[in-house]
Amino acid sequence: MPPSSTPDPEPTETIGTLGEFALIGRVTAGRTQPATTLLGPGDDAAVVASPDGRVVATTDVLVEGVHFRFDWSAPEQIGRKAAAANLADVAAMGAAPTALLVALACPPSTPVSTLSQLTDGLWAEATTAGAGVVGGDVASSPTMTIAITALGDLRGRAPVTRSGARPGDVLAVCGRLGWSAAGLAVLARGFRSPAVVVGAHRVPEPPYAAGPQAAEAGATAMIDVSDGLLADLGHVATASGVLIDVRTSVLSVPPRLVDVGAALGIDPLHWLLTGGEDHALAATFPGQPPSGWMVLGEVAEGDPGVLVDGRPYTEGAPGWTHFSQQ
Amino acid sequence: MPPSSTPDPEPTETIGTLGEFALIGRVTAGRTQPATTLLGPGDDAAVVASPDGRVVATTDVLVEGVHFRFDWSAPEQIGRKAAAANLADVAAMGAAPTALLVALACPPSTPVSTLSQLTDGLWAEATTAGAGVVGGDVASSPTMTIAITALGDLRGRAPVTRSGARPGDVLAVCGRLGWSAAGLAVLARGFRSPAVVVGAHRVPEPPYAAGPQAAEAGATAMIDVSDGLLADLGHVATASGVLIDVRTSVLSVPPRLVDVGAALGIDPLHWLLTGGEDHALAATFPGQPPSGWMVLGEVAEGDPGVLVDGRPYTEGAPGWTHFSQQ
Repeated sequence: MPPSSTPDPEPTETIGTLGEFALIGRVTAGRTQPATTLLGPGDDAAVVASPDGRVVATTDVLVEGVHFRFDWSAPEQIGRKAAAANLADVAAMGAAPTALLVALACPPSTPVSTLSQLTDGLWAEATTAGAGVVGGDVASSPTMTIAITALGDLRGRAPVTRSGARPGDVLAVCGRLGWSAAGLAVLARGFRSPAVVVGAHRVPEPPYAAGPQAAEAGATAMIDVSDGLLADLGHVATASGVLIDVRTSVLSVPPRLVDVGAALGIDPLHWLLTGGEDHALAATFPGQPPSGWMVLGEVAEGDPGVLVDGRPYTEGAPGWTHFSQQ
Repeated sequence: MPPSSTPDPEPTETIGTLGEFALIGRVTAGRTQPATTLLGPGDDAAVVASPDGRVVATTDVLVEGVHFRFDWSAPEQIGRKAAAANLADVAAMGAAPTALLVALACPPSTPVSTLSQLTDGLWAEATTAGAGVVGGDVASSPTMTIAITALGDLRGRAPVTRSGARPGDVLAVCGRLGWSAAGLAVLARGFRSPAVVVGAHRVPEPPYAAGPQAAEAGATAMIDVSDGLLADLGHVATASGVLIDVRTSVLSVPPRLVDVGAALGIDPLHWLLTGGEDHALAATFPGQPPSGWMVLGEVAEGDPGVLVDGRPYTEGAPGWTHFSQQ
């Protein structure tokens, strides 16, 4: 380092100066693992209970500037959101989340405090879902990148896939729709409030328990709404070979989103239909859904696709697609 | 795109033009999954058999320019190496690898052919180890980053951790030592041969079956040699609270490495003791190791640490550490 005439009185501790192993030691110390964590971080691999004899596994990668921004979210919020995206995928199979593994790449100049708070967020969300953070890796990269793998246990039930929806099934949703998109719209215009909407974008609240609940209730297909309701229902329609009709008459727009939409000149219904990242669960049921689920439409025969009130939805793209936003 | 006076007759197809979902469809089509893959890619999560009732899980992240270079390795080799690093960690617990999940971040300009070959490499190595590629994610990033999670099954055995080595145990190794480091030294000086040495750096050959074999034979501790023999034995020594003595008299230096060392003016023994990325397995046994394992020293009482012929090894760093090489 070149000499400086004004030395920093409190130099920031970074991952580059602390080192990989010391960082891992620090962010894993004192954590309370759930009973499913048979061997936690610190060995070549973790060992996680999977009493069902099968394990549900999913992975997602988040990139700074693409999926998260430190000027819009605190490190702890970014950690929670990254964990939630994966834990919700496990729940969407009807499984109970058991474990997270975290692969982190970041510049050597990244403050240890940032990584520590990010890990706190991962742990907070994992705990909410009943899982532990059982392993990880950290490497140097010019671009901060967080890749998370989530594991889960099916508890004896068949996995609920995207391909089981049948004509006559009822479509239902559990969890928030459109809140994250509204928060994103607010942030993108330079505002920081209303806090409840911005907060929904920063930290989603997936209904983890609703996944196993839906499986228990006989859900025929299920998906995590990560890219947008219509886009994700499109995956179910294609995989199941069915037509899904969303009825907006039963889709109540929360007053908060009505207000924000009015302030920004955006129809809030668009957020509900196309906004991603809230990680609600959408499922189809052969009869009425269990409590906590909101009926939203029905499954019919026809060319695979999604209609809104019987017609194609034409108000822009049905949801987020990677690479097209570059 | 701006008009060009000399249009490209065969424009390169990129992930940016093909899109995420089409890429995933293309790289997953026609793959043969092992019997342990109960539900492969394409849903919210995969389902993998874990008949033991426990699952072994580990994750690693590789960054372009830090862990791999496209001017030194073909995409297929990079894929194989990334998979091998994780599969070897599973074997080092005494488990049989069952599945890989891959989180890939890359620039939109990345050719689809590069990603296709990289995926071929992942599949080739997974198949070698008996595993399938069951899930993945791809996102846009300025820096190509490959995060892999590997899963494995213990088949009823206890996991072999780093902490079980006891005084009196025999230290043994299975697999190559120093080959990758020799290949790296060759490449770093601008050479491309000898091919067998450079090839060892490009694609390691971890002895996957030796992990379960060692567990079956009663290994008390085991580790995957990824950072360098002395560095990784240091983890075992610390976790087990023992002193490990490596005897160089029983460490035969392969003639090829003797030749390369002579040409580059480097003592090849240094590569064997400190070179990483070959992913040999090092283990301690209460008696003689099973066939295929080479005795390399012994475990003794004493302050936790690693000695070479009874003395501290002082020829430079004991192995690779992230962030110190920036």
